[in-house]
Amino acid sequence: MIRKYKIGNPIETDSVVVDIGLENEVIPYFEKNDEKKELALLLGKDDQVYGLGETVRGINKRGYIYTSFCADDPNHTEDKRSLYAAQNFFVVWGVNSVFGMYVDTPGRVSFDIGYSDKDYFLIDFEDFDAYIYVIEGLDVLDIVKQFRGIIGKSYIPPRWAFGFGQSRWSYMNEQEVREVVDNYDKQGIPIDSVYLDIDYMERYKDFTVSDERFPEFESFVKEMADKNIHLVPIIDAGVKIEEGYDVYEEGVKNDYFCKKENGDKLVAAVWPGKVHFPDFLNEDARKWFGDKYKVLLDKGIDGFWNDMNEPAIFYTEDHLKEVFEQLHDFEGKNLDIESFFNMQGIVGGLANNDEDYRRFYHEYKGKRYRHDKVHNLFGYNMTRAAGEAFERLSPDKRILMFSRSSYIGMHRYGGVWCGDNKSWWSHLLLNIQQMPALNMCGFLYSGADVGGFGADVTEDLLMRWIEFGIFTPLFRDHSAKGTRRQELYRFKDTTGFRNIIQLRYALIPYLYSEFMKAVNNDEMLFKPLCFEYSQDEMAREVEDQLLVGESIMIAPVYKQNAKGRYVYLPEDMKLCRFRSFDDYDVEVIGKGHHFISAELNEVLVFIRKGHALPIAAPASRTEKIDYSDLKYECYECQGEDYDLYTDDGISR
Amino acid sequence: MIRKYKIGNPIETDSVVVDIGLENEVIPYFEKNDEKKELALLLGKDDQVYGLGETVRGINKRGYIYTSFCADDPNHTEDKRSLYAAQNFFVVWGVNSVFGMYVDTPGRVSFDIGYSDKDYFLIDFEDFDAYIYVIEGLDVLDIVKQFRGIIGKSYIPPRWAFGFGQSRWSYMNEQEVREVVDNYDKQGIPIDSVYLDIDYMERYKDFTVSDERFPEFESFVKEMADKNIHLVPIIDAGVKIEEGYDVYEEGVKNDYFCKKENGDKLVAAVWPGKVHFPDFLNEDARKWFGDKYKVLLDKGIDGFWNDMNEPAIFYTEDHLKEVFEQLHDFEGKNLDIESFFNMQGIVGGLANNDEDYRRFYHEYKGKRYRHDKVHNLFGYNMTRAAGEAFERLSPDKRILMFSRSSYIGMHRYGGVWCGDNKSWWSHLLLNIQQMPALNMCGFLYSGADVGGFGADVTEDLLMRWIEFGIFTPLFRDHSAKGTRRQELYRFKDTTGFRNIIQLRYALIPYLYSEFMKAVNNDEMLFKPLCFEYSQDEMAREVEDQLLVGESIMIAPVYKQNAKGRYVYLPEDMKLCRFRSFDDYDVEVIGKGHHFISAELNEVLVFIRKGHALPIAAPASRTEKIDYSDLKYECYECQGEDYDLYTDDGISR
Repeated sequence: MIRKYKIGNPIETDSVVVDIGLENEVIPYFEKNDEKKELALLLGKDDQVYGLGETVRGINKRGYIYTSFCADDPNHTEDKRSLYAAQNFFVVWGVNSVFGMYVDTPGRVSFDIGYSDKDYFLIDFEDFDAYIYVIEGLDVLDIVKQFRGIIGKSYIPPRWAFGFGQSRWSYMNEQEVREVVDNYDKQGIPIDSVYLDIDYMERYKDFTVSDERFPEFESFVKEMADKNIHLVPIIDAGVKIEEGYDVYEEGVKNDYFCKKENGDKLVAAVWPGKVHFPDFLNEDARKWFGDKYKVLLDKGIDGFWNDMNEPAIFYTEDHLKEVFEQLHDFEGKNLDIESFFNMQGIVGGLANNDEDYRRFYHEYKGKRYRHDKVHNLFGYNMTRAAGEAFERLSPDKRILMFSRSSYIGMHRYGGVWCGDNKSWWSHLLLNIQQMPALNMCGFLYSGADVGGFGADVTEDLLMRWIEFGIFTPLFRDHSAKGTRRQELYRFKDTTGFRNIIQLRYALIPYLYSEFMKAVNNDEMLFKPLCFEYSQDEMAREVEDQLLVGESIMIAPVYKQNAKGRYVYLPEDMKLCRFRSFDDYDVEVIGKGHHFISAELNEVLVFIRKGHALPIAAPASRTEKIDYSDLKYECYECQGEDYDLYTDDGISR
Repeated sequence: MIRKYKIGNPIETDSVVVDIGLENEVIPYFEKNDEKKELALLLGKDDQVYGLGETVRGINKRGYIYTSFCADDPNHTEDKRSLYAAQNFFVVWGVNSVFGMYVDTPGRVSFDIGYSDKDYFLIDFEDFDAYIYVIEGLDVLDIVKQFRGIIGKSYIPPRWAFGFGQSRWSYMNEQEVREVVDNYDKQGIPIDSVYLDIDYMERYKDFTVSDERFPEFESFVKEMADKNIHLVPIIDAGVKIEEGYDVYEEGVKNDYFCKKENGDKLVAAVWPGKVHFPDFLNEDARKWFGDKYKVLLDKGIDGFWNDMNEPAIFYTEDHLKEVFEQLHDFEGKNLDIESFFNMQGIVGGLANNDEDYRRFYHEYKGKRYRHDKVHNLFGYNMTRAAGEAFERLSPDKRILMFSRSSYIGMHRYGGVWCGDNKSWWSHLLLNIQQMPALNMCGFLYSGADVGGFGADVTEDLLMRWIEFGIFTPLFRDHSAKGTRRQELYRFKDTTGFRNIIQLRYALIPYLYSEFMKAVNNDEMLFKPLCFEYSQDEMAREVEDQLLVGESIMIAPVYKQNAKGRYVYLPEDMKLCRFRSFDDYDVEVIGKGHHFISAELNEVLVFIRKGHALPIAAPASRTEKIDYSDLKYECYECQGEDYDLYTDDGISR
């Protein structure tokens, strides 16, 4: 049962697509405190809280404070309160009750789950305006399903987007991309896509292609397509200010850019230097920007990623001017602790400055809103612009789309990747722990940069991360300029990498089938053990194993030098210790605690009782997988018991 | 057996105190490559590497690259190559051989242990000048003992320094300190010391006390001493440039400050603004600076911590001038990606700039050395200045001393704390994993800032960290300005904190006894399981349990919301699940893997077979512990079988 409540005067977000009447009673469970702009819930000692999508820390969110205010922050350390997303749905699972809540408000809101006071869950609003949806059900899974039912079906990518993708900031020209593909093919490591980061553009201008780097872009796209390789270019939120640049000029002409209070267009700076931000919240601007993707679709492109859409701001023109004025005061002085940190602070604080988010406005649903009040809708509506356009421009064929910033509702238009993570073992674990929370909020097509974006990867970390990444729908190796090169063929154990990537391709029939069922039935692809084994007290302790679809449980190794790990089995399961799709041990393991060995090239997959896992022969590309000859690894069932979802992988 | 080799023309570091003749043969195990300035060792697939003291990552150092170049970096994330210390001793434990190596060189050297190539251990020197000590023995413990035998006995603090200490950057005046002590006493939480961070000084000038904040310092020290509370002031490496300030004027007069190539004194900036650095490598300057501690000793102070001695440099006068000149070029420009990051980079790169470490010189053993060539000796010799002075100034009574930066050799003069860590669960684990490596290198009196220095702590993290911290000799709760207040009495479960701190005091007879035996016998206080159970393959997998002294193994809980953890027992042991010194369960647990429950207020201690653990009644101060009435918790032995070391706790 879902009940809807209203606090104050909420801004509509279009995240819920089902009409639900407003309740007149007080919001249940939480105490409402108007003065503090707060909802407060006394937690039982062992109550757990799940959800909130893409945030730091474990699966059980208790013990920290998370602030929904989409942030471009590449240091996802444990203390960060905000990452790129605002996904305000959670479930509280107590001894006597379980309920879900969706806090639908586009501004800043904090979820203080036992941080300030270990016994209280406090929701603190900057503006006390929100729709609150309270969801009751049989258990967590039922609550999630009900919630997913009101926010609309999750985005479905083309099936080829389940293939492996290689990315780098940036492959600088055609030849470099060609070499990446050739190297993968030469090593026999399957691959479906290569990502184009910002340098494919002409001076970082959206919907342009550098003549110098990619002189024959359309034919190059075709050359790649002929090899069944999809090129996936990036699109940024900011539009370069440049006379003669059509996107800029159209935006100016039609008044589609965000403006300051005085009516001047905001001048911010991102990769190209000075830019304007399209007002994605304005329906006309959204349609206009969405139609721009046609430029690249017409060249044969069939996938995109939307970046910098929190929006990231390196600086605004106004703020930079202020900073230079302030700097004059420091020059020639004997800077002590205070003045020195002050100076570093004002320069270091130029990017993504809170004050800048109060400098511009949106035209949204007929009203004018200061940006910070609707901040969390920006990336969502950029991706909505694309998604809505693709329905017009490509009515039959699915287009790949995922975004960095997100809000619930955006899950209908694209997936997400988890932003600029690092080559840290702790971020492999974070990747594992974020997946179920993303699923709860409707984000099914998702994944993190495998191997880590920032910092230097090591071969063992990359191998272990790949071993988990093969289970995530979005499966992309991406790394930052200046870091160690991270393409799999650059490391020693090519055989090991080939085997693991081939295993991914062998599992695509299962993964795609389970993904599509999860979309169609509003279910989760990645589930914490306790969601399924809800009576098992121990299952609630497990933060590093996941159920993936109906048939399997995974227990990734995420510690350096580990030759195995502890695994908890909530029931007897059949372990497949994969070294490759056809080289693996099989062993039935009993319910309970085990230390299970897993050498660096081994993947632990546990088949649940009464379930089957289809395994294909490997193929070099997703579309070459032979569905007619699947082998089934089963535990107390038959292959035919498994309900394999198939389709053509591309039709909408 | 220890053999000494020479590469190039090494600079003496005084870290080894035993005369060892030079070998003429080639260095064993590693291949020497003069062109690359490199030593290279092919590692077996399962070879492990231990040691290197205070570094990031796990106990087994394989799989990353660690650079010895003492660094003031408060973000101890997994990718950092340098922390505050340079402790170049390690042991390689292979299938067929085990050996130790000490790389004695005061400049930059990198230990690439399977990072560049997973199968190679590469030691890369900036200058190919070093003494190399190769140590062979029966096992890791024997090799460590031999190594410790040549570097001299580890520093011994007064016994009161095993008590709990409370710190904060900064307690701003007498009254604040008084309130801290009163609050601990009121809550019945034992405490022995309060730390004074930089604000106790007059404008951050070493060996001064602010008249305003601590107007009656000497009588305040006495007031605290009467309560058995020790005040422990900080001393920084930089000396403020200020006419009339005696330390500055004496340093100038006697030419004790570091100079640039042109003979001018280097002007750097730290907390006070502009400072000179005493040339701690110069014997005369060292003696002079050491004698300055007398100012505070005479006021009744009996403990110090030496900080900022990598040395940390916020900026140098010369570099700051260059930066402001560069900034002019950016003003009024349309900064694009490159120019913007350039600008932020030059301002952000002011602190601890590599170039600055090449701007000044030392007079060392009759020669002149550019700082970077002897960089790793700076903090060592600052602490040596203090340690040597204390032998003169306090010949009978031990003085507490620990340092942030260190090099092997410094372990004779003081302990270390692990610098500016964060309130992260991963840093609790790091604390656990650093302890044995520190011990290998001679640093026995050591510990990390319990609860974390930077970032905001949560009550559960603080509780779990305290539960580990009670085993570390240096046991201090310290936190940074601007972070959440971290004194134990500020949180809800005062009873829980009281019980755990009381447990520390109940264990001090054991911990002090084991510490002193480790010092006297050149042994480790904290040992990884596999060092002791060297035939047990599984023990080598365990990275989160430690043996503490001869009688116990600990298995700290270091994960948020965890109600227990997996523990591996290399033999049967007797578990004591402590809620307080006298409220605990006892259970014999068999060899093997177990999931052991541990609620938030419970500490897991495992008594080894044939061993005994003395437990005292708690006391409010270390010196009030009643040694005459110890209880012994034993597993297949008697209390009298335990060899309790005791002394007066203060005499040298």
